[in-house]
Amino acid sequence: MKRLDVQFKIMSPMKAPKMTAGEVEAKLMSEFPQGGYGKRNRIEAVGPMTARVRMTADERNLHPGGTVSGPTLMGLADGAVYVAILAHIGWVPLAVTTSFSINFLKKPAPGDIIADCRLIKLGKRLAVGEVALRSEGDDELVAHCVATYSIPPNSGLPEFGSSK
Amino acid sequence: MKRLDVQFKIMSPMKAPKMTAGEVEAKLMSEFPQGGYGKRNRIEAVGPMTARVRMTADERNLHPGGTVSGPTLMGLADGAVYVAILAHIGWVPLAVTTSFSINFLKKPAPGDIIADCRLIKLGKRLAVGEVALRSEGDDELVAHCVATYSIPPNSGLPEFGSSK
Amino acid sequence: MKRLDVQFKIMSPMKAPKMTAGEVEAKLMSEFPQGGYGKRNRIEAVGPMTARVRMTADERNLHPGGTVSGPTLMGLADGAVYVAILAHIGWVPLAVTTSFSINFLKKPAPGDIIADCRLIKLGKRLAVGEVALRSEGDDELVAHCVATYSIPPNSGLPEFGSSK
Amino acid sequence: MKRLDVQFKIMSPMKAPKMTAGEVEAKLMSEFPQGGYGKRNRIEAVGPMTARVRMTADERNLHPGGTVSGPTLMGLADGAVYVAILAHIGWVPLAVTTSFSINFLKKPAPGDIIADCRLIKLGKRLAVGEVALRSEGDDELVAHCVATYSIPPNSGLPEFGSSK
Repeated sequence: MKRLDVQFKIMSPMKAPKMTAGEVEAKLMSEFPQGGYGKRNRIEAVGPMTARVRMTADERNLHPGGTVSGPTLMGLADGAVYVAILAHIGWVPLAVTTSFSINFLKKPAPGDIIADCRLIKLGKRLAVGEVALRSEGDDELVAHCVATYSIPPNSGLPEFGSSK
Repeated sequence: MKRLDVQFKIMSPMKAPKMTAGEVEAKLMSEFPQGGYGKRNRIEAVGPMTARVRMTADERNLHPGGTVSGPTLMGLADGAVYVAILAHIGWVPLAVTTSFSINFLKKPAPGDIIADCRLIKLGKRLAVGEVALRSEGDDELVAHCVATYSIPPNSGLPEFGSSK
Repeated sequence: MKRLDVQFKIMSPMKAPKMTAGEVEAKLMSEFPQGGYGKRNRIEAVGPMTARVRMTADERNLHPGGTVSGPTLMGLADGAVYVAILAHIGWVPLAVTTSFSINFLKKPAPGDIIADCRLIKLGKRLAVGEVALRSEGDDELVAHCVATYSIPPNSGLPEFGSSK
Repeated sequence: MKRLDVQFKIMSPMKAPKMTAGEVEAKLMSEFPQGGYGKRNRIEAVGPMTARVRMTADERNLHPGGTVSGPTLMGLADGAVYVAILAHIGWVPLAVTTSFSINFLKKPAPGDIIADCRLIKLGKRLAVGEVALRSEGDDELVAHCVATYSIPPNSGLPEFGSSK
């Protein structure tokens, strides 16, 4: 049998973001200050179907033993998917997480945590993103997460989520 | 064919807790103050293979739209499993979450959120708990979660969990 | 602080099934013969928000090493949720799984596997069930699963599930 | 703030496979004939941290409604991770799934299903893979899965899984 030489590809129907990293961050800072965007959580980049958020953990985020706590990483990962969705469909803040699953793979090193989100699906009512979390300067993943979001209907925005 | 009349049972090999709700809470308050135990998060009960934690959400825990945010509920659920494990194996704070998955089922009503954890498995190195989250006074679940924890070896305890 | 004496409860709004175990099994045998119901998979019981399916594994279901394979257990668990849903909403075969997660906890002993499903949520469009899998005669779980199902709209049933 | 131009990357420490697609398939055909490899399931490619398996569904794999059943897709996805692991660590058939989660995103079109696995982590005792499932000729995902595997210790093979 012929064996193909293939690369892993998650998704083809790429969509370009509608908001820049700076625009999403500014909106979140003003409308959702408790999210810590622009401070502890900085949106470093958005690209076609992707977003990157960098978090600087502080003492309140530590688990006994000194490692960054699981819920802190979960919040970062969930936020990275939220950022990716908003960047692509525009400002629809009532998008909500409907499921979230995460595997913790390695204790994070001290320093910043970087969350890279890739949207796996971006439909009118449902979006799914995966997130790779790593410590600054380390290639191995700290955690890997998949989250699904529900996008409210009638966002008043005919062009939003025109997929599917 | 004969049809049985059965009840759902998750697990049989019940183990009694080694620490009371008050003992776990006191330990967490002194050793892990950033967890908010004894304040925002109160450990209401521990029983054979179970634990209940009540959370009073405040403004910082709100998602745009006014509902309690996903990460807040995730942190509560993860904490409820941690509490249940510690209550049953004794004070082994370096137990860490290895995977966590949650389905959000209903927007929480204003008021306290109650997290009921049941341990599905309690082994020497691995513990698994499920958590039912609901709003005070409402029977329907807000969310349902399953978390796995890794328990460190050589806890200094000849027979695991024979704490203190 | 007063500590409560509580039991774990998953859900209150119990609903009684609309179909018996025998009725669901007969329907599945005639409409979905490839599911093996009535043969390899027997529906032993349905009750308020619950269903039990017993599976007799055969050689085709074995993983290298002789244990029942993961996909075989996944199929059984997914089927048990499907059975529980159909029993409660009536014959709506186009209900489909939208997410499925499982933790494998113990290698199954030789012999039958019993899948106990409990519905966590039973809404008009969404149902969620958890499944405890164990070997016949052993109390410890082989696996624990959570599955979400999407129920099609307009099942021809004015009030959802007013089946037949 | 400077915004980076980044691409999503899941993992860096790439490892080359030790077995070819044909070698893994031949081993599975002879040692694990019930897996259907070389027949229904064909291993089309393995590459650094990846594997691709193609499945031709038949009648036994159909859900009511004519779509490929959830458990069939789960089995394919689980198998694709198994293939990727074996290709990279060598023939260690007792590697077993410890957790598995999947989101179903779209009904598969008639025809073959292609499962692309990428290993997210490949450690000595733990491997994690994600799988993108799609219908032949369609770019959108049918399902996305994450599976964790436990690799037995003392495989007698010093070089196997020499990561971490």
